[in-house]
Amino acid sequence: MSGVDAVGRAGGDTVAGALSEVRVVAFGGLPEIAPGDDLVVAIGDALVGAGLAPLEGDVLVVTSKIISKAEGRIVAATDREDAITAETVRVVASRVHPGGVTRIVENRQGIVQAAAGVDASNTPDGTVLLLPEDPDASARALAAGLRARFGVRLGVIVSDTLGRAWREGQIDQAIGAAGVLVLDDLRGSRDSFGHELVVTQAAVGDELASAGDLVKGKASGMPVALVRGFGHAVVESLETPARALSRTGPTDMFRLGTDEALAQGHGAGYAEGFEAGYAAGLAAARAEAGGTE
Amino acid sequence: MSGVDAVGRAGGDTVAGALSEVRVVAFGGLPEIAPGDDLVVAIGDALVGAGLAPLEGDVLVVTSKIISKAEGRIVAATDREDAITAETVRVVASRVHPGGVTRIVENRQGIVQAAAGVDASNTPDGTVLLLPEDPDASARALAAGLRARFGVRLGVIVSDTLGRAWREGQIDQAIGAAGVLVLDDLRGSRDSFGHELVVTQAAVGDELASAGDLVKGKASGMPVALVRGFGHAVVESLETPARALSRTGPTDMFRLGTDEALAQGHGAGYAEGFEAGYAAGLAAARAEAGGTE
Repeated sequence: MSGVDAVGRAGGDTVAGALSEVRVVAFGGLPEIAPGDDLVVAIGDALVGAGLAPLEGDVLVVTSKIISKAEGRIVAATDREDAITAETVRVVASRVHPGGVTRIVENRQGIVQAAAGVDASNTPDGTVLLLPEDPDASARALAAGLRARFGVRLGVIVSDTLGRAWREGQIDQAIGAAGVLVLDDLRGSRDSFGHELVVTQAAVGDELASAGDLVKGKASGMPVALVRGFGHAVVESLETPARALSRTGPTDMFRLGTDEALAQGHGAGYAEGFEAGYAAGLAAARAEAGGTE
Repeated sequence: MSGVDAVGRAGGDTVAGALSEVRVVAFGGLPEIAPGDDLVVAIGDALVGAGLAPLEGDVLVVTSKIISKAEGRIVAATDREDAITAETVRVVASRVHPGGVTRIVENRQGIVQAAAGVDASNTPDGTVLLLPEDPDASARALAAGLRARFGVRLGVIVSDTLGRAWREGQIDQAIGAAGVLVLDDLRGSRDSFGHELVVTQAAVGDELASAGDLVKGKASGMPVALVRGFGHAVVESLETPARALSRTGPTDMFRLGTDEALAQGHGAGYAEGFEAGYAAGLAAARAEAGGTE
């Protein structure tokens, strides 16, 4: 840091040529995954085949879809809507549109997302794919297996494609993690003017998932990305759940869609208002009757 | 594509060794930016100094903060709350907590975010930094200037740090863009089973912003990241606004916070219920009075 100069400029100056670099690489060579397949073997072999044997501090971003397939989370579903209902813990919002119903729900994994994460793309007709039962556990198993095979400390992010409030389009986010810190807690650190950064917690797990999606794409047959250069977030412990990125409960200011909350509030208000109004109407009529006696 | 084999596996197989790679590099050498500074010069010189003269198809992810500074969007603010109010078009939700009030608002830029994007960190005491007046215009100016200087087609993303509904922590997202497509519209394309992908629009502008944040960090003095390897989204036209990533209006299912909508619905319902109840109470009393005559 260079301190504050005469015109109030401060800090921030860095040496020309200083670099901070992350490489994000998706690779081919993975077979189509089927129930029971060993992803440690499949991903490990593909990494080696691509000349990308993992190094210390690498992070693998793995599309949840291949984990679901390996874990046999493919189910017959003549009606995808039934599968969504079965995976739903709580409906946040729904809206009818010409193509059907959009349902934003909290699912069994504790994630708020459209359609509970139930996927009918990239699966055979008549089947749908559910999310992994416990994506953090899936990430731990994969990270442990790949660490053992390659003898390096690496992290695993399990990604899924999520919509967002107030933003168009979807982005990949972290729904499972092991061995990589998903929140970079900057609270208490200071900016270049010495002010404490009070509210900043960077959701780097989500940012890693998004970076992975840039190279994986949606239909490219490359469901895993290797992120090299983010080793400062890779830790020995595999207990770094992406579940910590889900915000539900009392701190959730959007636990119910606007239309749903308006309707719920209206119903409760109407009942209370009717009761109070009825009493007032009775009293007024009686006062009026009393006044005319 | 390999078609569907006897056990229902389909497509997806890729040639071992096939790679898709993106490099994300933050670099030093930028001075602390002050009002009136020419960012084309500052960023261009820093790129050259870092040995990163842009190539065709590169994307630069630029933290909005340095654009705000260059554009003189630093204002005296004894009270940050007043500045937030001034930048607010519409309050979505607010909540009182021990440290003050969190206000989620739609701001003048059409973005729904906490505190309207008004920033009191990395600024001198007694000042706050507003977002660029028109981040897409800022991106266009920067992209045009850097294209002219380096003679290559490059794209610019202006990033800011946003909180999210249902997710802990913040991620960098695109609030301005020029020369890079921010939405990758996959609707109408097909998965490896031949199913049409109906709802997928990847918000790659946001994913690029997030990838940039992985290397820029929050207080590192590296406010710009170069993304190399995503040239398929870089286009000749500079009219690729990040504004298209903001969802407000009729399709916004979360235009009002849950508590606010419950209260608003309750108020309206109470008034209606009271009126109906009052009439019913009057009628009941009169019927009762009539019956006892």
